[in-house]
Amino acid sequence: MSSYHALSEQEATAYARRLPDFFAPDAELSCREIGDGNLNLVFHIQDQGSGKSVILKQALPYAKVVGESWPLTLDRARIESEALAVQGRLCPELTVRLIAYEPELALTVMEDLSDHVIMRRGLIEGRRYPHFAEHISEFLARTLFFTSDLGMNQQEKKIQTGRFINPELCKITEDLIFDDPYTDSENNSFDEAIRDEVERIWQDSALHLEVMLLRQKFLTEGQALLHGDLHTGSVFVTETSTKVIDPEFAYYGPMGFDVGAIIANLLLNYAAQTGWKEGADLADYRSYLLQTATSIWEQFHVKFSSLWDEQLVDRMAATPGYKEHYMKQLLQDTVGFAGCKMVRRIIGLSHVADIDTIPDASRKEKAQRLALAIGKTLIKRNRSLASIDEVLDIVQTQWSAIEQGK
Amino acid sequence: MSSYHALSEQEATAYARRLPDFFAPDAELSCREIGDGNLNLVFHIQDQGSGKSVILKQALPYAKVVGESWPLTLDRARIESEALAVQGRLCPELTVRLIAYEPELALTVMEDLSDHVIMRRGLIEGRRYPHFAEHISEFLARTLFFTSDLGMNQQEKKIQTGRFINPELCKITEDLIFDDPYTDSENNSFDEAIRDEVERIWQDSALHLEVMLLRQKFLTEGQALLHGDLHTGSVFVTETSTKVIDPEFAYYGPMGFDVGAIIANLLLNYAAQTGWKEGADLADYRSYLLQTATSIWEQFHVKFSSLWDEQLVDRMAATPGYKEHYMKQLLQDTVGFAGCKMVRRIIGLSHVADIDTIPDASRKEKAQRLALAIGKTLIKRNRSLASIDEVLDIVQTQWSAIEQGK
Repeated sequence: MSSYHALSEQEATAYARRLPDFFAPDAELSCREIGDGNLNLVFHIQDQGSGKSVILKQALPYAKVVGESWPLTLDRARIESEALAVQGRLCPELTVRLIAYEPELALTVMEDLSDHVIMRRGLIEGRRYPHFAEHISEFLARTLFFTSDLGMNQQEKKIQTGRFINPELCKITEDLIFDDPYTDSENNSFDEAIRDEVERIWQDSALHLEVMLLRQKFLTEGQALLHGDLHTGSVFVTETSTKVIDPEFAYYGPMGFDVGAIIANLLLNYAAQTGWKEGADLADYRSYLLQTATSIWEQFHVKFSSLWDEQLVDRMAATPGYKEHYMKQLLQDTVGFAGCKMVRRIIGLSHVADIDTIPDASRKEKAQRLALAIGKTLIKRNRSLASIDEVLDIVQTQWSAIEQGK
Repeated sequence: MSSYHALSEQEATAYARRLPDFFAPDAELSCREIGDGNLNLVFHIQDQGSGKSVILKQALPYAKVVGESWPLTLDRARIESEALAVQGRLCPELTVRLIAYEPELALTVMEDLSDHVIMRRGLIEGRRYPHFAEHISEFLARTLFFTSDLGMNQQEKKIQTGRFINPELCKITEDLIFDDPYTDSENNSFDEAIRDEVERIWQDSALHLEVMLLRQKFLTEGQALLHGDLHTGSVFVTETSTKVIDPEFAYYGPMGFDVGAIIANLLLNYAAQTGWKEGADLADYRSYLLQTATSIWEQFHVKFSSLWDEQLVDRMAATPGYKEHYMKQLLQDTVGFAGCKMVRRIIGLSHVADIDTIPDASRKEKAQRLALAIGKTLIKRNRSLASIDEVLDIVQTQWSAIEQGK
């Protein structure tokens, strides 16, 4: 990658102009760097005449979140583009469209989704996305099924697993999600107001054992090609459209990690809805969030089961009882990983705006305590769960406990 | 690999003569092709003067077992040589010494172990190897621990996983061990005398579910670098020495697959000891075999646990309760895979000489039924097992049942 260098806006514009059959030769292009992430430059390039636009995403060789001292492989741009290609083939309507990939520059060119909004932002603004559960469950069912031993040739899957070996980005997950929050790590970042609860978590060895078992799955269980970072900041939405972006954490891992991630992020927004607005609207929005979270699992279950019944490549997976066993395990993994995703967003390095932007300190504390309570319970109960209704119960019980100041 | 061709004895000799610092320039070399396997040429080359010798193993681009029509990747020679290098580094005394690897010719050069005997042959001759359990448990503990997330850098492990992706040889295992024996496959090969029991196995859906769960681990669970084919034909022994050979099936899989393989092959020899010799010697040899099989687990458990306590790279794996959970799961996997390994050697394509060479038809049938009964029970009980003593009980109970003609 000797020709690699971080692009200037001028260079990005020149590159975009050379895209085949995209902009008119005499187009007047404008360019803005709009990246607010930690790892990449993101250029928005638009033809001022036609309005046509494109996104150039360039991986940086370091993580900005901790300065330039945390080097990070540029190979993640290849992984992202290859994952987008796989997901786009399986879910063309639900994946941001990949236009080009330039390995020398670690540069991914993709469609501009400026008419969409990042879902986390939409939820913070109290918006509803009535098709989201339908869409994301479809994305999950199809991408996970068709990249697994169930839905693709098992030898090709092994070769594909090799292409998606992603040690450095997996390491970020392993540290920030499965390690730091459970110990007094310097990477942690939490409000002093909840130190008592955080310290309880550091001492909770029953919780640690469950986290270890989930982490072991993350480390060893190559079930399917995961998105690997499927939170509400990785999804662009409108009321009628859903587009998944940013699969740079993609690797072969346990399916429940993706399903759990999206559910956890809805529950984090749910936790933010405690005590700080009044009236029927709030209860209604909580109910919308919870219903969406459970509906994602329910629709995922139906769709994944249908693929199993209709598109199974693995003849042996039709063995009686196997599907039921598999789906139950997948629910348990989903719930366990969802719990881990919630805890890390309160104690660990990287928080969510849903909770961090709550202006009132005591309400914010309540939200953080609720998120931790739900997360902990999901982790502790994951191996004994048999139905998504139990998750509903857990969430509502913890909400009531926090509201009643228990 | 354009220069690849199957070597003649003359070419093999010429190659061996060019090995640096091995044979004297004027050595009078003899060469014999001694391969009796299905996949490779094996040349034994010796200096008639000094007696010094070497083995050249060349992968063939097809499997002989079903004629030249079953093509097989030559990349397995690379995998074998790389696995030998890893195992040799971890267990230099217990692994055949790798001398050279020639990718163009898919050729592995290794030390000659003609002073050893293949363990299966030794067991068939009724010999005992008092150090075998000690040695093989050491090989298993060290190779599995130090290639896993417990004993090596977790990011290097991911890269190593990529180097050992081995789709074609895994496919042989997936078909011959986890698929064919449980259905009326044309690959199967079994004596008509036991057709009733074989057909019962084809109908036993509770058994099939357990096999599916074990197969899922084989397909998805990358715990450690396995030997992948650790039967008694992959071990050279003397009374005082043990050398593991032939890791061409190496890949990242579930640890219990290796531990179970070697135990299964001792139990297959045990099953051969039914009814066809009389007297105290037979009972004593059975007891030796059973004691060796259980001792392998017990010593493996002690050694693996010690490595965990003393050489853990993964700080988090010291979480209270995790080791106990891990070791129990490993025992259950070991027992389940051991059962699968037994069943396939009676019903599937590739049998073991321990049982196939029994001259008397009714005794042979008894041995086959005993092996199936033990194998089935180990598979069915694997998920509820808590101790290796239960395996001992299962084997002895099944032996008594067969002996009493139940």
